[in-house]
This record gives sequence, C-alpha cells and structure tokens, in this order.
Amino acid sequence: MQALYLANGQLSIRTNHPQPQPASGEALIRIRLAGICSTDLEIVKGYAGFRGVLGHEFVGEVVATADSADKDWVGQRVVGTINIGCRECVECLAHGPEHCPHRTVLGIIGHDGVFAEYITLPVANLLVVPDTVPDEAAVFTEPLAAALRIREQVMVRPSAKTAVVGPGRLGLLIGKVLALAGTEVTMLGRSERSLMLPAQWGLRTGFVTDYPENSFDFVVEATGNEAGFAHSLRLVRPRGTLILKSTFHGQTTLDLTKLVVAEINVVGSRCGPFAPALRLLAEEAVPVRDTIEAEYSLSDALTAFEHAARPGVRKVLIRP
Amino acid sequence: MQALYLANGQLSIRTNHPQPQPASGEALIRIRLAGICSTDLEIVKGYAGFRGVLGHEFVGEVVATADSADKDWVGQRVVGTINIGCRECVECLAHGPEHCPHRTVLGIIGHDGVFAEYITLPVANLLVVPDTVPDEAAVFTEPLAAALRIREQVMVRPSAKTAVVGPGRLGLLIGKVLALAGTEVTMLGRSERSLMLPAQWGLRTGFVTDYPENSFDFVVEATGNEAGFAHSLRLVRPRGTLILKSTFHGQTTLDLTKLVVAEINVVGSRCGPFAPALRLLAEEAVPVRDTIEAEYSLSDALTAFEHAARPGVRKVLIRP
Repeated sequence: MQALYLANGQLSIRTNHPQPQPASGEALIRIRLAGICSTDLEIVKGYAGFRGVLGHEFVGEVVATADSADKDWVGQRVVGTINIGCRECVECLAHGPEHCPHRTVLGIIGHDGVFAEYITLPVANLLVVPDTVPDEAAVFTEPLAAALRIREQVMVRPSAKTAVVGPGRLGLLIGKVLALAGTEVTMLGRSERSLMLPAQWGLRTGFVTDYPENSFDFVVEATGNEAGFAHSLRLVRPRGTLILKSTFHGQTTLDLTKLVVAEINVVGSRCGPFAPALRLLAEEAVPVRDTIEAEYSLSDALTAFEHAARPGVRKVLIRP
Repeated sequence: MQALYLANGQLSIRTNHPQPQPASGEALIRIRLAGICSTDLEIVKGYAGFRGVLGHEFVGEVVATADSADKDWVGQRVVGTINIGCRECVECLAHGPEHCPHRTVLGIIGHDGVFAEYITLPVANLLVVPDTVPDEAAVFTEPLAAALRIREQVMVRPSAKTAVVGPGRLGLLIGKVLALAGTEVTMLGRSERSLMLPAQWGLRTGFVTDYPENSFDFVVEATGNEAGFAHSLRLVRPRGTLILKSTFHGQTTLDLTKLVVAEINVVGSRCGPFAPALRLLAEEAVPVRDTIEAEYSLSDALTAFEHAARPGVRKVLIRP
C-alpha cells in the first residue's frame, strides 16, 4: 500500500509498504482523511526518535476485524484514540493507556500511523462517528480532545482572565473550547494575519508583546517554541496557572525564578477524551473546518508537509 | 547600630548603620537571634538585586511601637512574617501581602533585614512566640512555615510515594513536615553525610542517582541547582506533582518534553503560614535545633556566611 514513511529524519512516499494485519482485538481501518499536526512536524525534526509511517489524526472506515466477536465494527466510520497500552499495568488498569510505560502510540511510538491507506488499531480505541459529522470535521476529533484535556486536569474558572499564546492549529481549538464555558479568552499572536480567524470566531485577540507581565490568571502555551514559553511565564499572574500544551524538541533555557517566587502552577497537558470532542463536533460548537488550509492526496504528502510547516498555516489534510 | 550590609555583591559589617525608626503601625524590634537561609546566599550572588541589611529569619523582642494603640506589643517576644504589602490592592485585600506587586520584603526587597541589632516591621506582621518555645527553635518559624506552604497549595496524599531532593536546611524541614501526616518520605542526597540527620529523624534516605525515572508520585525540589531540578523531573511519575521550593538565580536549561508528555504538575512554592509553624514548634513536632551547626555573633557575620555557604552545612545562626 501507499504510505508516508519516516526514517532517519527523511520522509518518503512508499508505494509498496506492507498492509498491516490486525492482531486479535484489532481492526483493519481504511483511512478516509488524515490531518497533519505540529507534533508530526516535531517528529520529523527528531522528537520521539520515531521510524515508521507517520500520522495520528484520522477518520476512517473499519474494513475487517481479527476476531469475529468484533465483526459489528466492520463498515463503521470511526475515529481512534492513539495510545495503545499493555492493559496489565497499574497505570492502564487505574487510568487508561495514556501513560502506560509499555505503550505504543499511533504514528509516534512503535506503531505505524495514518498517512497511509490502512492502519490497525485495537477496537477498544475506536469510536463511531455520528452520521451528521462529516469527515472534514471528524478528522479534528484528536486535536479537539487534546484541547479538552485541559478541563480534565484543572478547573478553569469562567471568570479567569485567560490567554492562549499561539493562535495556531491547536491554540485556536483550545481558545474556542475554553470560551465555550463562558471564559473570556484572548488569543495572543505575533502577526495580524494569525489573529484574523480567532477574531472571526468571536475571540479577543492581541499581540503577545503588547501585554504587560502578570496580565492573565490562566495562560495556555501553544506555540511550541522557547520564546512562547518565556512570554507565557511572563504573562501569568502570581498564583496563576500556566498550561503547557505543545510538545517541543530539545533543550529550553528559562529563568525559573518567577515560577517559584510567584508560585506559578505549571501543568503539562497532552491527549484528551474523544467522546466529548465528538459531542462538540456533532453540535457544531467549534467550526473546525474553518481552519482547513489545504488538502492533498497521499501521493502529494511531501508537498503537504512543506505546506503545513510554513509559518501561520493551520490544518493541512491528507486524503489517501 | 551594628548591621551586616550588602552592596554591589559585597557583604560588610557596619558599626554605624542608622537604627530604623518605626513608622505608624510599626514596631521597633530588637533581634535576639537570626538564621542564615539559602536565599540569603543567593541574594549575595545577585538574586533579587538587593542592597541593604540582609536577613529575614529571626526571633526578637518588641522594644517600641510608633502608635500608642500598639503599646501592648512592647516587651513581647515575637517572630514576624516577611512580606509587607500595600494593603490597598486586590492581591493584598483578597489574599494577603505575599504577592502584592508593591510589596517590600524583609531583607530581600526594599526593607532592611534582621542581621542587625534592630529592625522595624508592621505589628500586623508579628506573632507572639509561646513561652515554651526557646529562641533557638523560634528562629526556625519562617523556614518551617515555608515548608508548610506546600500543604496550603496542593493536597499531599498520605499514600503518595514522596521524595525530597536535597536534604539541606530547608529540604529536611519539608521532609519532616510531609512525614508528620503519614506520608512516606524519602530524602534524596548525594553524600552519606547529608543523609545522616534525615535518617536520625526517621525518614527514609537514598542517593538521588540510585532511583530510576518515575519512582515517585510527589517530588519536592529543594537543592536550588539545575542538576537537582533535572533529577526531580526525572524522578516524578507521569501525572505526578513536582514542587519547586528553592529560589535560584539565573537561567536554567532543561528538556520540557517530559513535563508535557507525562503531564507533570509543577508548582512553585514560597512563603508559608506562621501560626501553624509556631504550633508545630510548640509541640516539638520538628526537632529543628538538631539542624543548628554553629552560632556566631553579629560582628562575626562574615565568617558565619562563609560557614553557611560550605556544602552540606545546614543552619548557621547569628546573635547580635
């Protein structure tokens, strides 16, 4: 089958990549549509040391299952959570696969991903997509779940003066999700262009450098770069909360003095719950399709990645 | 009066420093005993850019008040909280002076400190020391309150596998305070000598390098150096909590990947509540005097600072 393969930091289109075979408990899924995420771009730069088929945001159709007990899944249009745990450790049993030390992660750790014609996933990872949600919205389930994850970890007060630093592909979803519960969210960016869509979505906008220190109670860092982290730490008030939402590769240099003296609460945040994300998509509560900038065929995936890596570009999709 | 003065990174004993005069609402306090803290050592290196009389851990006696309404304080043996807020801003009114943007801080920001014969403080900052608590214990009220601050910020589960990285002057108090509520605390250090007193206090001990990653649910960083922070982040398990308890000067370089991927909760922690600290001292629940390594007269304060700066040294006291 055709697949976008990463090896030694080099992406290439393979036309004869072996089609994966579902093991017991797994489904074979035909990818209908997939999305490029900032984590994919970081992985290409070397983050996570991954070798294999890249990609983890998708909507697809189950075409087969290994076990006949799972045959009702065949024909279903699905999205899938990306962490595959051992289901035996305390972490898996008590909390789920997200932090299993033995986990594989779709397109990130030890499991071929979704920039391909087919993938396999355990049926336990699958959720049926409501008929009213088109593929172009369903493909956002994973990043929307990641945005919702913040609410699973900390209480976000509706009255908290809130900023999202980095109005990009994930930052914009986070801003909207936080605003849905009544919180006043300011999207902070560095260019007028980056703030146009946030403003269209009814969010407050501003230039990150225009705000003095301690301007916000609650700050979400979604830039994925060191300057963004420094701004975020600058902007959060004493005893405030700073959410780190973007994975970044390599060492970061920062002054931890404010973190201690101002007693900041910093919370790392990663994968979130799919079912609430699908509910928001079914309600059309987040106009995710506005963020689509381009769609490429899988054979043009290298061009798609170049496009996605340009500054200010939000969602680029790949259709096998 | 005699005072230990810091200017341009140089400490000196001044014999003719002007005795402070209490303003309205303030008391004049004769210092009975004062303690050297790691923050003092950092301030000498340049942290906080302070110029003036150093020192903030003390027990003293009120010798005068500016207002006759406060005259009952005269003759009382007291300790005093170190943050002096404007008492007008939202932060002061809602939460107290600790994060007032206009605050001064005893011996740290804009207010002469306690390595002197006399200080002034608002009577609102003072607490009477119970007669049963000797000066040599009362002088630990401020650092013991700082240890208790952790409990004001986050819930520490009695069942949480807990480590304190850095068994020094503050780390040891933290370990004991956390252990008092039933938590199993392991004090982690780099030398056998540093772990002797923690073991005498009934705490578990170990070498920080002997523990694999993700060994603890709850980790307190109390080393004040970059290596200590890196170890602490390594040792805390996914979804665990890392408390940053030591102020350090300058830039720190670290890999934030684990913080995000493992969804660590990092909490900066500073000044704590004095009344509970005095209660613990009155109950002799923390044998603070065990940590006293030396006492110097104020005229020997430069030697006292050299002593306190040696690796592994815990509390050095100064008696005016």
